[in-house]
Amino acid sequence: MDDRIREHAETLVDWSARVDAGDDVVVSVGEGAHELGVAVAEELGERDANMLATYASGEMSRAYLRAHGGEFEDDPAYERALYEEADSVLLLSGSRNTAAAADVPGDRRQARSRARQGIREARLATDWVSTVHPTRAMAQQAGMSYEAYQAFVYDAVLRDWAALADEMARLKELLDDGEEVRIRNEGTDLTMRIDGRTAVNSAASVAYDSHNLPSGEVFTAPYATAGYVTFDVPQTVRGTRVEDVRLTFEEGEVTDYEAARGESVVEEILDTDEGARRLGELGVGMNRGIDRVTDNLLFDEKMGGTVHLALGRAYDANLPEGEAGNDSAVHVDLITDMRGESTLEVDGEVLQRDGVFRWEDGFDGD
Amino acid sequence: MDDRIREHAETLVDWSARVDAGDDVVVSVGEGAHELGVAVAEELGERDANMLATYASGEMSRAYLRAHGGEFEDDPAYERALYEEADSVLLLSGSRNTAAAADVPGDRRQARSRARQGIREARLATDWVSTVHPTRAMAQQAGMSYEAYQAFVYDAVLRDWAALADEMARLKELLDDGEEVRIRNEGTDLTMRIDGRTAVNSAASVAYDSHNLPSGEVFTAPYATAGYVTFDVPQTVRGTRVEDVRLTFEEGEVTDYEAARGESVVEEILDTDEGARRLGELGVGMNRGIDRVTDNLLFDEKMGGTVHLALGRAYDANLPEGEAGNDSAVHVDLITDMRGESTLEVDGEVLQRDGVFRWEDGFDGD
Repeated sequence: MDDRIREHAETLVDWSARVDAGDDVVVSVGEGAHELGVAVAEELGERDANMLATYASGEMSRAYLRAHGGEFEDDPAYERALYEEADSVLLLSGSRNTAAAADVPGDRRQARSRARQGIREARLATDWVSTVHPTRAMAQQAGMSYEAYQAFVYDAVLRDWAALADEMARLKELLDDGEEVRIRNEGTDLTMRIDGRTAVNSAASVAYDSHNLPSGEVFTAPYATAGYVTFDVPQTVRGTRVEDVRLTFEEGEVTDYEAARGESVVEEILDTDEGARRLGELGVGMNRGIDRVTDNLLFDEKMGGTVHLALGRAYDANLPEGEAGNDSAVHVDLITDMRGESTLEVDGEVLQRDGVFRWEDGFDGD
Repeated sequence: MDDRIREHAETLVDWSARVDAGDDVVVSVGEGAHELGVAVAEELGERDANMLATYASGEMSRAYLRAHGGEFEDDPAYERALYEEADSVLLLSGSRNTAAAADVPGDRRQARSRARQGIREARLATDWVSTVHPTRAMAQQAGMSYEAYQAFVYDAVLRDWAALADEMARLKELLDDGEEVRIRNEGTDLTMRIDGRTAVNSAASVAYDSHNLPSGEVFTAPYATAGYVTFDVPQTVRGTRVEDVRLTFEEGEVTDYEAARGESVVEEILDTDEGARRLGELGVGMNRGIDRVTDNLLFDEKMGGTVHLALGRAYDANLPEGEAGNDSAVHVDLITDMRGESTLEVDGEVLQRDGVFRWEDGFDGD
């Protein structure tokens, strides 16, 4: 086995999920993530944790959803019980065909998603971590050779996470003290409130309320969004290519939308429920190890010099204890590139200009 | 997709598991059983059943077990909850390497098996069905080409199960009315009591208390076994080749054992617990569609003209309501071929001679 796969598994189980002896761990293995599954199984065995492997197959989901009548039972008891009793959930994605479910009707998918809100909440209440095992399909989606893609993934995953966490603590402090964020670039002039919200230092560990490996972003839950934004980083959303999505907000809600490509997917998302038309997340990418767009959200949204916004559900970690944030069955991240002419301001003070933070070399203070 | 895979999935979900709308179904997908998993997902969707896929990976199990310290927690709560809430469990085996776990220490495996008795019982209390998707590794183990092996498997699986069920009802009646069974062939002269026990007409459907697809056997739970038996059908047990196992019984318990090959595995099984030294099952193969040994228990034990005996746990279906049969963490089937000079007698009456039943053409009544 490639040593990098073992290191990946060790980082996931130790740094990210903080698995202890006796923990009840669900390992969700994607169709192409078998090798990482084996390495994770070894790590869990070494820690005397308990293991149950689930199979996350795009082809099985597609076949099931297409054949189903469309009236889904709310939160089937057996799956809910599994996640309610679990301590950790490790999601190892690894697609063999990133378009495997592209021909599933959107309303079918939405209906199932709505029916599984309790299961989703139970899973999010565990020490869950999502990561990715590099596959040929994902290399293809990134327009990269398999070998180069593997190097890309492991560069992003096998980092000095403790050092990056310290660096990100700076931005978290600035956002926690701030009241209003303003983002401007070529197609964007957007303001949103963040007062009363707590930013998360997303250092790829549940100890930081951070659930993605790789990570490297600071995010909070904005509200009262106003203005317009263009998401100029191309993405594949639900199997469909989406480009240059432009959203207009008034009083926190999307009032207009268009897209150069994939507009129907945007419409489908916005129509899921009421909360899908409001933002659940503002995230600032800080992982300088990720230096190119690969059409995989887990990486793209962490790229240093980008900002992303999510339509839909907000994370509890950003909210005051007991306060409910934006609620929705979806959480869909869209990304805008700040590495051209841009500013990111908090209460009128420029924190980042043209993709460079004020504490980084090359920051233009004027 | 091969039409036979779709027919297999339909037989499994309809005839075997009798899945209804709203049922909570666990689908356990082996490393090489993906295609059948997709076909089963479609069938479950068509019936508006719920689906949760688990991943049964020999390589993950091996890595986990080898790394583990050896003190396993009893029945981890999350897995137990899953099976306690499930209605059906469909086990799709499909190995990519039938020796994948051959280097796991036997005591490690035994310890885990002992710690999972509650989970096992919860799973056995569902409408569970075990079946097999033909893989190249299994073709290799059978010494067959892939194409020929696929034909073999589907011949055994895609049968007129209703008609076979009627034929097997005959033998069930004879065993239910009988008190003592005697089996004789070249290396065997064994008697066992069966009075008070109920034979199961194993017609590959939960409606018949039958949990294997293919099936085609009638089995009961014997006791007070005495004599000797030679299992002359070679098998791979726990990844190890086992040949010509000879067991001697006194008062229901194994008092002596030897094997031409794989004796250490036999010892390991017998040492699991007290119940592992007694029989949990006497089974009579009646599937004439299976006409050759392929070193896969699911098929070999159903072959017309063979008899198998299992060390370990008895099935509740064979026992009077409320009565506990032989209890053990293991249930290991071993097979003897009756197609040479042999007799199978119940209370002194010959039901089968030289592998031919009394109601079949060619039966020698003398």
